[in-house]
Amino acid sequence: MALCFAHYLGVSPLVDAAVRVSDDLLKKYEKVSNATVLGELGRRGYQKVFMYGVKSLAPGRRLVGRAVTLRYLPSRPDLQERITRGGHGEGFNETPRWDALEALTPGDVLVADCMGMSMTSTGGDVVFSRILSQGAAGLVTDGGVRDGHKVAKYGYPVYGGGSTPTVGEPNVLPYEVNEPIQCGTVLVWPGDVILGDEDGIVVLPSQLAEEIYDECVHHDEVEAAILWHTQKEGISPKFFYPFNEETEKIYKAWKQEHGK
Amino acid sequence: MALCFAHYLGVSPLVDAAVRVSDDLLKKYEKVSNATVLGELGRRGYQKVFMYGVKSLAPGRRLVGRAVTLRYLPSRPDLQERITRGGHGEGFNETPRWDALEALTPGDVLVADCMGMSMTSTGGDVVFSRILSQGAAGLVTDGGVRDGHKVAKYGYPVYGGGSTPTVGEPNVLPYEVNEPIQCGTVLVWPGDVILGDEDGIVVLPSQLAEEIYDECVHHDEVEAAILWHTQKEGISPKFFYPFNEETEKIYKAWKQEHGK
Amino acid sequence: MALCFAHYLGVSPLVDAAVRVSDDLLKKYEKVSNATVLGELGRRGYQKVFMYGVKSLAPGRRLVGRAVTLRYLPSRPDLQERITRGGHGEGFNETPRWDALEALTPGDVLVADCMGMSMTSTGGDVVFSRILSQGAAGLVTDGGVRDGHKVAKYGYPVYGGGSTPTVGEPNVLPYEVNEPIQCGTVLVWPGDVILGDEDGIVVLPSQLAEEIYDECVHHDEVEAAILWHTQKEGISPKFFYPFNEETEKIYKAWKQEHGK
Amino acid sequence: MALCFAHYLGVSPLVDAAVRVSDDLLKKYEKVSNATVLGELGRRGYQKVFMYGVKSLAPGRRLVGRAVTLRYLPSRPDLQERITRGGHGEGFNETPRWDALEALTPGDVLVADCMGMSMTSTGGDVVFSRILSQGAAGLVTDGGVRDGHKVAKYGYPVYGGGSTPTVGEPNVLPYEVNEPIQCGTVLVWPGDVILGDEDGIVVLPSQLAEEIYDECVHHDEVEAAILWHTQKEGISPKFFYPFNEETEKIYKAWKQEHGK
Amino acid sequence: MALCFAHYLGVSPLVDAAVRVSDDLLKKYEKVSNATVLGELGRRGYQKVFMYGVKSLAPGRRLVGRAVTLRYLPSRPDLQERITRGGHGEGFNETPRWDALEALTPGDVLVADCMGMSMTSTGGDVVFSRILSQGAAGLVTDGGVRDGHKVAKYGYPVYGGGSTPTVGEPNVLPYEVNEPIQCGTVLVWPGDVILGDEDGIVVLPSQLAEEIYDECVHHDEVEAAILWHTQKEGISPKFFYPFNEETEKIYKAWKQEHGK
Amino acid sequence: MALCFAHYLGVSPLVDAAVRVSDDLLKKYEKVSNATVLGELGRRGYQKVFMYGVKSLAPGRRLVGRAVTLRYLPSRPDLQERITRGGHGEGFNETPRWDALEALTPGDVLVADCMGMSMTSTGGDVVFSRILSQGAAGLVTDGGVRDGHKVAKYGYPVYGGGSTPTVGEPNVLPYEVNEPIQCGTVLVWPGDVILGDEDGIVVLPSQLAEEIYDECVHHDEVEAAILWHTQKEGISPKFFYPFNEETEKIYKAWKQEHGK
Repeated sequence: MALCFAHYLGVSPLVDAAVRVSDDLLKKYEKVSNATVLGELGRRGYQKVFMYGVKSLAPGRRLVGRAVTLRYLPSRPDLQERITRGGHGEGFNETPRWDALEALTPGDVLVADCMGMSMTSTGGDVVFSRILSQGAAGLVTDGGVRDGHKVAKYGYPVYGGGSTPTVGEPNVLPYEVNEPIQCGTVLVWPGDVILGDEDGIVVLPSQLAEEIYDECVHHDEVEAAILWHTQKEGISPKFFYPFNEETEKIYKAWKQEHGK
Repeated sequence: MALCFAHYLGVSPLVDAAVRVSDDLLKKYEKVSNATVLGELGRRGYQKVFMYGVKSLAPGRRLVGRAVTLRYLPSRPDLQERITRGGHGEGFNETPRWDALEALTPGDVLVADCMGMSMTSTGGDVVFSRILSQGAAGLVTDGGVRDGHKVAKYGYPVYGGGSTPTVGEPNVLPYEVNEPIQCGTVLVWPGDVILGDEDGIVVLPSQLAEEIYDECVHHDEVEAAILWHTQKEGISPKFFYPFNEETEKIYKAWKQEHGK
Repeated sequence: MALCFAHYLGVSPLVDAAVRVSDDLLKKYEKVSNATVLGELGRRGYQKVFMYGVKSLAPGRRLVGRAVTLRYLPSRPDLQERITRGGHGEGFNETPRWDALEALTPGDVLVADCMGMSMTSTGGDVVFSRILSQGAAGLVTDGGVRDGHKVAKYGYPVYGGGSTPTVGEPNVLPYEVNEPIQCGTVLVWPGDVILGDEDGIVVLPSQLAEEIYDECVHHDEVEAAILWHTQKEGISPKFFYPFNEETEKIYKAWKQEHGK
Repeated sequence: MALCFAHYLGVSPLVDAAVRVSDDLLKKYEKVSNATVLGELGRRGYQKVFMYGVKSLAPGRRLVGRAVTLRYLPSRPDLQERITRGGHGEGFNETPRWDALEALTPGDVLVADCMGMSMTSTGGDVVFSRILSQGAAGLVTDGGVRDGHKVAKYGYPVYGGGSTPTVGEPNVLPYEVNEPIQCGTVLVWPGDVILGDEDGIVVLPSQLAEEIYDECVHHDEVEAAILWHTQKEGISPKFFYPFNEETEKIYKAWKQEHGK
Repeated sequence: MALCFAHYLGVSPLVDAAVRVSDDLLKKYEKVSNATVLGELGRRGYQKVFMYGVKSLAPGRRLVGRAVTLRYLPSRPDLQERITRGGHGEGFNETPRWDALEALTPGDVLVADCMGMSMTSTGGDVVFSRILSQGAAGLVTDGGVRDGHKVAKYGYPVYGGGSTPTVGEPNVLPYEVNEPIQCGTVLVWPGDVILGDEDGIVVLPSQLAEEIYDECVHHDEVEAAILWHTQKEGISPKFFYPFNEETEKIYKAWKQEHGK
Repeated sequence: MALCFAHYLGVSPLVDAAVRVSDDLLKKYEKVSNATVLGELGRRGYQKVFMYGVKSLAPGRRLVGRAVTLRYLPSRPDLQERITRGGHGEGFNETPRWDALEALTPGDVLVADCMGMSMTSTGGDVVFSRILSQGAAGLVTDGGVRDGHKVAKYGYPVYGGGSTPTVGEPNVLPYEVNEPIQCGTVLVWPGDVILGDEDGIVVLPSQLAEEIYDECVHHDEVEAAILWHTQKEGISPKFFYPFNEETEKIYKAWKQEHGK
C-alpha cells in the first residue's frame, strides 16, 4: 500500500490551485487589522474564516504566513503501522509530521488540524524547533502544543488550543500533508494566508489576498480618521457610518494632517 | 410602530426607581474588596450578584460605576428594519447602541446583555471610543468585544466574554436602553453599582450601596488585622473566626499600629 | 414606579406590528415540513430561526401556534418586590407569568425566554394547566419545565430545555409579556408562528407566513415526487437537484398518480 | 485542477489495504455484544474504538456493516466551486456525497466525518433515501441528520450526532470518499466493521474481524453461563472473575443445559 | 497497610448516625411527588438535593430506597494494587464494588460516586445482576453503566450519567463503601432516601424522611384540589397561591368529592 | 458519632504506605521538565497523571512538593452540623480545612479535591495565608480560590480551577484530610509529589520519585543535546529519534561542550 502525500509528486495540484502569495504582499498585511480583513471577506460571502478555540500562546506576536497543512487522525495501532509502511521509516516519530516540517520555507506557517482536541499534543519543543531552523513564519493548531511555554520562547508566533505536557501519540497521529483541512472549525486550503493577532486567527483565501488589500488599507485609514476626528471633537462616531460624504471630508483632513 | 426606549421620555421610571449613587460614594468603593461586598450582599439574601463568564480584558484596572444598560437580541432581517423605522435612521449602524453611548455620563458604565454569546461582537474600537470621549467609567458585556485588544488600550476598564475580530450584526442587534437586563447570568438594574476587579464583576444594587458601605470597610479592616497578627505570630487565623473577643482585641491593636 | 406591559394598553404596538396569522393558515401549516419552512426562510435571508437546546418533552406532538412571549430575568430580592409593587399583587406567585397565561387564546403558544437556563423551572404542572383550560396551542421555553413529565400528559405539545423538579423562583423571575425575546438563541416577535416537530422549533415571522406557504407546499410535493420516483426506479435522487426539467416531469407524473 | 477521489481509480489502494469482511461474518456479528468486541479489542491495544457523541436515531436497530467513508470540510464559497470543477457537475448538490452513495453495496454503511458538528446537517430524507434503494446497511455520522425522524423510518439503522431541520451547505461540504476519517473522535478506515447498538457505535478494524470472532462468542457464552448460574443460586458473580476453574465448570453445565 | 471500609467494622458509625428509614415509610413515599419533596426540603434550607446529569436509563420506573454508597477514584496502577492488598483478593475485579453489592438488602439502592464521568463504566450487566439477586431497590450513579440497555431490562430502576460499552477499570476504580459521597453534584450520606422519577433523582436526608412526610402528602393533595377545581371551572390557579382561605375551601370540597 | 481523620491517629496508615520523598530529592526535581516526568510515568503504565482544568494562578512559579490532601463534599445543613460535632468546634469555619493547614510542613503542598467545581471557593486570602506562615510549598485545587489574585501575591505557587470572589460554604464543605482524592480528574495519594509549571500539574507517585529521577535527567539532557546540535547545523531533529547511535554521539559532544 502506498499512501500518497501531495508534495511527494514534486508539484501538488492543490498547492498549484492556490495562488502563491508573494513575500512582499505578506509583509504588507502585517499592518492590516484582522477585523478589517474579516469584514471585507464577509462582504464577499466568506463568513466562516475566524478560528474558534485557537489562541495566542506567545501573546503580542503578529503572524502572517502561507499555510502548509498537516492533518492528524485519531490514533490506532494499525494506523501507526500503515504510516510507517507508507515510507516514513520505523518508530513512533516516523510520521508525515517530519515531511510537513521539511516542506516549510520562509513565509510559511505550519497549520495542523488536530480535530479540535485542544489538550492533545501535536508536537513539542524539540519537534517544533525545526520551524525555527527553517526560518518559517510560525505555528497554528487547534490541538495542544507540548511544552507550549518553551515553544513560545523560540521567537516565532505560536497559536494553539492549549499548552500541555502530555504525549500526543496515544491519542493522535499525523496523517497527511498539504491537503485541505479544518482547523478551529474553519477551512484551510494549502497556501491560504494565515493572519494572527491577540484575538486569534483569520484565514484569508490565497486568491483573494491581492484583490482585497487596497480596500483593507482604505478601510483602516478611514476608521483611523473617524477615531482621530471624533476624539478631537468629542462627538459620536455615529455620523460617519455608513461611510458618507461627511466621512469622506474628515478622511481627507486626516490624510492631509498625517501626510498621506 | 414606535419602539419606546425609556430614556426618550426624558426621565426613565426605571432609573428613577433606582437610587442615584453619588460620585463620592463610587470613589470610596474603589478601595473595598469585591469579595467583601459579595459577602455582605449574601448575608442580605442577594446570592446571585457575581457575573459568570465575564472577565477583565484589560487586567489590573479596577472598575466602579453606575450601570447604563443595553439589551441585544438575536439578529433577524425584520428586526433590523424595525429598529431603523423605530427612529434610529438608516443603515446597519443605526441602532439603540448609539443612544446608550450618548446616555453615558462620567461615573457611568455601559453594561450590555449579549445573551451570553461570548464570541459575538457587541461593538469594536471605533464604536466604543465614544465611552472614552464621554469620560465614562468603562464597559461590561457577556458578549464579545471586537478588537478587544485595541479597546483595552483606551485606558478605561473593559470586561467581556471574549475578544473577537468578528462582526456582530449578522448575529445580534442592540434593541433597548436602560431596561433591566441579565448579564453574565445575573440581574442588572439601571443605576446598579458595577464593581470589577481581576476576578470579574460584582453587581451591587443601587439602593444598598450606602447601607452596606461601613460594614464592608469594617470587614476589610478586621481581616487585614487578622492577617497582620497571624503572620506576625506565625499562628492560624482560625481562632479569630467567626469574629469574637480575641478578634476585637487584635483589631484594636492593628488600628493603633496603623494609626486608624 | 410603574412597569408597563404591552398588553395592559389594550392594544400592543408590537403585536400590532405583527400580522395576525389566521387560524386557517395555522391549520394548513400542520402538514408542512419544518425543514422546508426553514429552507424557504433561509432563501430570504432568515438564517437564524431554529431554536438550539429546545426539545420536545411530549414526543410526537406537532405544534403550530402564534407566539405570546414571556421574558424571565435572573432572580433578586428587589426584583421580586418591584414586580409585586408593579401591580401583580403579593406573594411569590404574583408575577407577569399569570398575565401571560391570561393573554392566551386558542391558537396561541406561550414562548418563555429563560435565558437558556435549561434546568431552571419556568413553571410546573399546576401553573401550566392554565394553558389547557385556555385551549391554547402549547408551551415552548429554553428553560426547564417543572414536573415536565406531568405537563407532557396534558395533551398539548410541550418543548423545553429540560424537565426538572426544582423550584424556579430562587433562580429566575418572570418580568414582561409580549415584548420581543430570545428563545433558544433565536428571536421571537410576539405573533410569530411557532412550528414544532420531533427535531425542535422553527420560528416563522408572522409577516412571511402567507407569502411562503405555497412555495413550501410545492417544495414538499416535489420532494415527495422525487422520493416516489427514485425509490420506484432504484436510482439516485441526484439527477433531480437542483430542480430541473426532469424534476418537473416526474412531479407531473406524481401528481397524476396521486390525484393532485 | 483535478481532485482525486480514491474510488475513481477503480480500485482504491486504501480499500485494498483493508480486508474485505464477508457478508457471512457480518451476519454472525449481529449476535455478538458490542461491549465484548470492545473488550477484546482493548486487550490487543485498540483502546479508542467507541464513538463519542454518536447515538441511535432509530433506537432498537442493530447495525453491522462495512464502512464506506465520506469526509466533510467547513464550507467556503471557493471550496464549493472547486468541488464542482473537480468533476461533480454544477449546483449545490453536486458534491462527492452522491459518489459515496453510489459506492454503497449491500452490507456497506455510510460513515460521514462531520467534524463533530452534531447539529449541522450532513443530508436529509431525500438524499439518504439512496441508502435504502442501494440496499445498504445503514448510516453513521457525528454530524446531524436533516429530518432525522423521517430517515429513521426508512427501516435501516441511523446513528448521528443529532436530528435537525437546518440546511448543511452553508456550514459544511462533502469533500472526499473512502479515505480514512475520524468520526465521533475515533478512526474509521474504509472497510472497517461498524457495529451499532443502543449504546452507540464500536469500530472493529477489518483485519481483526475474523481473528477475534471466536473469542467474542466464547466470552459472551461464559458470561451468559455466569449470569444463569448466579441468578439461579442467588450468589455473587465475583467468584467467577477472572475466569477460573469454577467458571469453566458452570460454563460446561450451561452448555449442557442449553444444548450447545 | 490496611484500608478500612466502614462496613468491615460490623457497625458503621456513619450508617449509625443516619436514621434507618423503615420499609413502610419507603413504600409510602412511592406516591409522593419528587417536586413536592424538593419544595419541602428547600423550605428547611436543603437547597442542593437534586442530582445533575443523572437520568433514568429505564424510563417509567419509580425509585425509592436507602442509599448504600460506593466511591470511585481515578485509576492508577498502584491504586489497583493497594485495593487488592487491602484484602479484596487478586485480579481486576477484586475491588470494594463487590463489598458494596454484598451489603445491599431489600429496600437499599446502590449509589455510586463516579466523579461525574458520565461515559466511564461503573459496572455492567453481570456485575449489576447482583442487585437483582439481592432483591435491592435499584442503581444510581453519575458515571456510566456498561451495557446499560441490558441492565435496564432487569426490572429494577437504573439511573446513570449514560450507557456505554466501554470498560471502566482503565479509568476508574471502586475505592470505599458507605462513606459520604457526592453524586451528580449533591451530597449522599449512607442511609439517605433516594427518590427517582422521570425527571431524575432527589436525595432526602434520612433524618427528615419521617418529619416531612405528612406535609408532602398535604401539599400534593392541595395541588390536586387546585387542579381539579380550576380545570372544572376554567379559571386561573393564581387565586389559590400562596395557599389561602379560598384554597382551603376548594381543598375541603376536593376531599369530600374524593372520599378523603 | 466520631468522624475519623487519618492524621488524628498520629500516624496515618495511608501516609505510611507512601514513601516520604526527601527534601533533597524535591529540590532536584525543580530542574526536571514536567513533560519528561510524564513521559517516564507513561512508559510505566501511569497514563493519567496530568490534571485537567487546573491552571497556574501565579504564572511563572515552579511547584514541587509532597501532597497533603483535603477532600470537599457538596454542602448540606446536616453535613455542616456533623463536621462540627466531629470535633471541629462551632461555626462556619470550624471544618477539617484548618486541620489540613496545620498538618502542612515545609515541602508540603495542600491539594484540595473540590469535585471539579472550578468557580466554587475552597478558601481565600486569609485562610490560605496559613500556608505562608507554615512555610509550605504551595496550593493546588480543582475548585476556585477566593480572591485568587491576592493569594497569588503571597509568593508561593497557586494552581486552581479559577479565581472567584464567591463564598464557598453554601456550595461545598471540607470533609476529610490525608485520604486519597481525585483532583483535576487524576488520583492524588497523600505524599505524592506534585509538580507544577506553566502548563499545569503533574502527579508523581511517591514510590516512583527516586526510581525515575536519573532517567528524567538523562532524557532532558539528550533532548538539550539534540536541540543544540540541530539548531547549530540547521537540520531536522528527526534523525535522532528514537534515540540511536547518532543521538549518543551528539549527546557526548554536548556533554563535552557543556562540561558535564
